[in-house]
Amino acid sequence: MTIDDLRQRIDDLDERIVELLNARASCALRIGHLKEELGLAIYQPDRERDVLAHVRRVNTGPLDGDAIARLFERIIDEARRLERVAKAGHHADDRPAGSRHT
Amino acid sequence: MTIDDLRQRIDDLDERIVELLNARASCALRIGHLKEELGLAIYQPDRERDVLAHVRRVNTGPLDGDAIARLFERIIDEARRLERVAKAGHHADDRPAGSRHT
Repeated sequence: MTIDDLRQRIDDLDERIVELLNARASCALRIGHLKEELGLAIYQPDRERDVLAHVRRVNTGPLDGDAIARLFERIIDEARRLERVAKAGHHADDRPAGSRHT
Repeated sequence: MTIDDLRQRIDDLDERIVELLNARASCALRIGHLKEELGLAIYQPDRERDVLAHVRRVNTGPLDGDAIARLFERIIDEARRLERVAKAGHHADDRPAGSRHT
């Protein structure tokens, strides 16, 4: 395989990674909505710990466990950021129309 | 879907993401080896720019382009770190046996 072949393969993998990251973010958003409906805390550190333990456990390399955990910390972080934005938009819609521009 | 169903779905997605991240890292390592053989620079900022433009282009959300780019900056970063470790190990093996413990 040439460098160009390998780069093409990386581009293909990246498209699938983008797709899966978005599918994951959609699930996280739906969990956020359910938690809000049920009055549960948005941030659940136990679940985050489980997610990181799980990805370390299924990892076979060449990335090591620490690298995988660092990446998933960022993935979780982006999901949380997205949730905050979605929630802010949602609450903005709840306010009476006259206060929406404030 | 309940919260537990969604978490199960996230766990399944995470396993596939770990797999793809490792497949991507393997390709990056092979590119690193080829570059070294061919005497090419390891760090090629143009390629990095292309990778980020590509993932932004194929992204359909709910993560926005900036979130996707931030995540791929980290993914590229971990690949580079792995390459450095692999290269250091490789060069360590090149040294005469007597100097290997230094």
